[in-house]
Amino acid sequence: MYRSHTNGELTSEHINQEVILSGWVQKVRDKGFMIWADLRDRYGITQLIFDEERTPAVMMEDAKKLGREFVVQVKGTVIERESKNPNLPTGDIEILVKELTILNEAKTPPFTIEDETDGGEDLRMKYRYLDIRRNPVKNKLIFRHKVAMEVRNFLSTEGFIEVETPYLIKSTPEGARDFVVPSRMNGGQFYALPQSPQTFKQLLMVGGMDKYFQIVKCFRDEDLRADRQPEFTQIDCEMAFVDQEDILNIFEDLTRHLLQKINNVSVDKFPRMTYDDALRLYGNDKPDIRFGMEFGELNEVAQHKEFKVFNDAELVVGIAVPGGASYSRKEIDKLINWVKRPQVGALGMVYAKYNEDGSFKSSVDKFYDEEDLKQWAEKTKAQPGDLICVLSGDTNKVRAQLSALRMEMAERLGLRKANEFAPLWVVDFPLLEWDEETERYHAMHHPFTSPKPGQIPLLATNPAAVKANAYDLVLNGNEIGGGSIRIHDKATQAQMFEYLGFTEEEAKAQFGFLMDAFQYGAPPHGGLAFGLDRLVAILGGQETIRDFIAFPKNNSGRDVMIDAPAPIDEQQLKELHLNVVKTKE
Amino acid sequence: MYRSHTNGELTSEHINQEVILSGWVQKVRDKGFMIWADLRDRYGITQLIFDEERTPAVMMEDAKKLGREFVVQVKGTVIERESKNPNLPTGDIEILVKELTILNEAKTPPFTIEDETDGGEDLRMKYRYLDIRRNPVKNKLIFRHKVAMEVRNFLSTEGFIEVETPYLIKSTPEGARDFVVPSRMNGGQFYALPQSPQTFKQLLMVGGMDKYFQIVKCFRDEDLRADRQPEFTQIDCEMAFVDQEDILNIFEDLTRHLLQKINNVSVDKFPRMTYDDALRLYGNDKPDIRFGMEFGELNEVAQHKEFKVFNDAELVVGIAVPGGASYSRKEIDKLINWVKRPQVGALGMVYAKYNEDGSFKSSVDKFYDEEDLKQWAEKTKAQPGDLICVLSGDTNKVRAQLSALRMEMAERLGLRKANEFAPLWVVDFPLLEWDEETERYHAMHHPFTSPKPGQIPLLATNPAAVKANAYDLVLNGNEIGGGSIRIHDKATQAQMFEYLGFTEEEAKAQFGFLMDAFQYGAPPHGGLAFGLDRLVAILGGQETIRDFIAFPKNNSGRDVMIDAPAPIDEQQLKELHLNVVKTKE
Repeated sequence: MYRSHTNGELTSEHINQEVILSGWVQKVRDKGFMIWADLRDRYGITQLIFDEERTPAVMMEDAKKLGREFVVQVKGTVIERESKNPNLPTGDIEILVKELTILNEAKTPPFTIEDETDGGEDLRMKYRYLDIRRNPVKNKLIFRHKVAMEVRNFLSTEGFIEVETPYLIKSTPEGARDFVVPSRMNGGQFYALPQSPQTFKQLLMVGGMDKYFQIVKCFRDEDLRADRQPEFTQIDCEMAFVDQEDILNIFEDLTRHLLQKINNVSVDKFPRMTYDDALRLYGNDKPDIRFGMEFGELNEVAQHKEFKVFNDAELVVGIAVPGGASYSRKEIDKLINWVKRPQVGALGMVYAKYNEDGSFKSSVDKFYDEEDLKQWAEKTKAQPGDLICVLSGDTNKVRAQLSALRMEMAERLGLRKANEFAPLWVVDFPLLEWDEETERYHAMHHPFTSPKPGQIPLLATNPAAVKANAYDLVLNGNEIGGGSIRIHDKATQAQMFEYLGFTEEEAKAQFGFLMDAFQYGAPPHGGLAFGLDRLVAILGGQETIRDFIAFPKNNSGRDVMIDAPAPIDEQQLKELHLNVVKTKE
Repeated sequence: MYRSHTNGELTSEHINQEVILSGWVQKVRDKGFMIWADLRDRYGITQLIFDEERTPAVMMEDAKKLGREFVVQVKGTVIERESKNPNLPTGDIEILVKELTILNEAKTPPFTIEDETDGGEDLRMKYRYLDIRRNPVKNKLIFRHKVAMEVRNFLSTEGFIEVETPYLIKSTPEGARDFVVPSRMNGGQFYALPQSPQTFKQLLMVGGMDKYFQIVKCFRDEDLRADRQPEFTQIDCEMAFVDQEDILNIFEDLTRHLLQKINNVSVDKFPRMTYDDALRLYGNDKPDIRFGMEFGELNEVAQHKEFKVFNDAELVVGIAVPGGASYSRKEIDKLINWVKRPQVGALGMVYAKYNEDGSFKSSVDKFYDEEDLKQWAEKTKAQPGDLICVLSGDTNKVRAQLSALRMEMAERLGLRKANEFAPLWVVDFPLLEWDEETERYHAMHHPFTSPKPGQIPLLATNPAAVKANAYDLVLNGNEIGGGSIRIHDKATQAQMFEYLGFTEEEAKAQFGFLMDAFQYGAPPHGGLAFGLDRLVAILGGQETIRDFIAFPKNNSGRDVMIDAPAPIDEQQLKELHLNVVKTKE
């Protein structure tokens, strides 16, 4: 037996008990005649004490040799501490050591195993197993486990069945790039790793499973953006005999349950907003509604004067930054430079100070009088003391730019509070989106999404206007889940494939099994998938997902700890019927 | 809203209520003036009734059109059934239909959706989504979910943290073949899919995670034997600061918990048996101890006469088949032919009848007298009325042969009862096993398994005799789990790699990160992994795993439903820097 207790549980109630503890040496304080060592494990820290008077000399010598991260076992007596540490659950006691066994020595770790470490990101990733010893990382992994358990228990209680779908499936060119797996037994053929279990969960609905979920790894071979991983985890869900309302309700319940259980936060009915309204009011489809600063569209009240910039713009739109009227000229110039950075891309910014005394001062006083600016203030809901920031140009671009400014100002003003949670349903997504590169419409969600009833004829005349029974769940400005009601009849699905540019042969080759399945009695069905990595990060009050993943990959898709990917043997390639094509560096 | 109730919940308590139900038409009985239809969903079956007197004529017409597996929604009134069906939870009531909506039509399914179907294995796999509608398959998937939930909740309560380890890792030639995944971003390099998360769970122990588990897919590119899948699911577990006893106790508790919760069976402390004893007494390392028929080794009492077959044999060994003394000559000849089949491979079988009257009659009466045979009976624990079956030859072969006979006889005698559970720990496995093909020793468990304390010197003199801290959990003759205490210091691990024929470079290239990790304070640790597919099948009283997997692959590793693996685009290959080598058929 390596331990009778963990390092997190001994208190003054245990005084005089003989105990066995094991763990890592966090630090040693050697006063010569007296040595203290902090012993650490997952559960906490317990102070060990060795002293000349009570500890045999030979053990004093051993104790002096202890280095950081040595693994030791001690037997000893729980005694009261002289100087108690009220910040530590075990702060009232220490262990007078009677036996000390060094279970394993340790080289000095390449960074300190402390909450605030001196290790940079790259070093921490290479020695991730040491990074995980640090409380901030360890606790995030434990937090993730708790969230996943709550999700499973909630859904299971609601009658959902977790069904494991296969990982070795078939490549489908639609959507993002698949990772593929060469088949040795079927030369020249490949499996693909799933981007999601989409078709399988639909087949489970055809199979009568009624309510399905799965917490499952998914794979996308994309050029990685920051905070994207080639493998990621989804809470994948599907239900039969439901309409959109049923789905929103159950997953709203799940999210509310998580906020209550994990964050101890009660949230009422989640607000709902159409996709069009989200774009109009916040400039994007995943608005952070923890704070206001809603967009005010100003075309009506800004295009009647001689100001050509506005008159030529498709959209003139502004926000009111609380308290911004007091900004200095220099501060405002910096703000203008901020929106002109290539990452944001605005050509400039017009501003109007709504002073505390009710007067206005704008950068376009030449064109607009007090009366005009008052109307701007009304549209942007500006109050005296606010700064109205106005951008103009192409609708889609200017919305994205103003949205970036809105988020930046909220960040600066401390309005994005980590412990505040503002969930939101965004509904009525368009069925299709135009792809500039291929010059055709793509499915915005995926090709199995059902158009709104009665809107199919619109596909022929005004495809961009067709709305889908598709919805996203947004939390604090992040999409944490999304889903749709699916098509469940073969004719509509065939029509959709045709519309998306699949030939009949392509549709049959890739999704023939699904089309077949729809002929044998497919029920109405729909579902939703949460991104677990993101969900956990946001519930944990963070925006980056990496520390909530035990062994993440870097932005080149590499695992720098195990050094993967890596070349494989010639023999292995031969068995797989493959040649690697050498390319020039 | 598609339904107010499911098809499994309405009883006489609901009589006179208006309800909405949805589901599949199981069958229709059309008496002309009256039509009954069984409506089915995951939860049960509810009888619908349409009759001339109470149902509008137009709806009678619609009802007549209903075919098997049509998807319908009905609104109606719960009424008392005239002829009740006590075998059905809903058997007291039926629904007088007032509205009938056909949600989807269905072609006649290629096999009947009944508990006993007329569909063969191949057809059922191609239309797996229809197969899943059948109760036996559907219930096995729900059963699997229940087992997984119990496992997760038990382990979580015991302080284990489920940590997701990566799927895109590095290929290691040791062990079975890896499936590999070409990297597009790192031309000529490959990820591998994990055969198990072995090294990651060990790194989590180095990382202080203390107690880890994960229900996780694993992958092996092996030539498939019957009932093997290229992707399979493990309950993977690891603990730090434990010895073998700690591990056996906690996972014995888990298994006992499952038997209690899932099967309502109470099992006391699990017996333990050494690997050597298992081979000696049952001829294999996963003995079914639901019944006796233990081996009796007969060398001492059978090699003292002129019978050359026995005298030349390394091992003479027998079992007593209960009641077998009454077998006819013809039956015994069939048994002899059975052991001579190539699948078993014995050259012949000697038998001795221990008659009810205490006399003996054997096939070798020429050589052995009553006194000899009495000793055989003692060694095999034969009782009057039993048949002693004796095989001889090379120890390993003859044990396997007699084990096959023992299992066959138990099967014939009905001793392998599906609802009886006999778990067993097999301990003290050898560290190494001799591989005929490569003519060297391989790790029996894996190269991270710790030899028993003090046995390392034996590696140099008698490698086959070195025992490991390795153990298997056996249930009803199946290995359901296995694990070991791991090596946790760099020197021993390096020694082991060297012993297993790794050069230092190979060891470093493949496991350098683990060897590195061992230098920074690795705790003693060990673990175990259950095969979930097999565990679930056995708890479910079955021996084949396929129906406990939603979408299994066939023996050629193909998913015949989605038709994978399949060729991929030239463009995709090019992006992956790969050429397929065409081979002759």
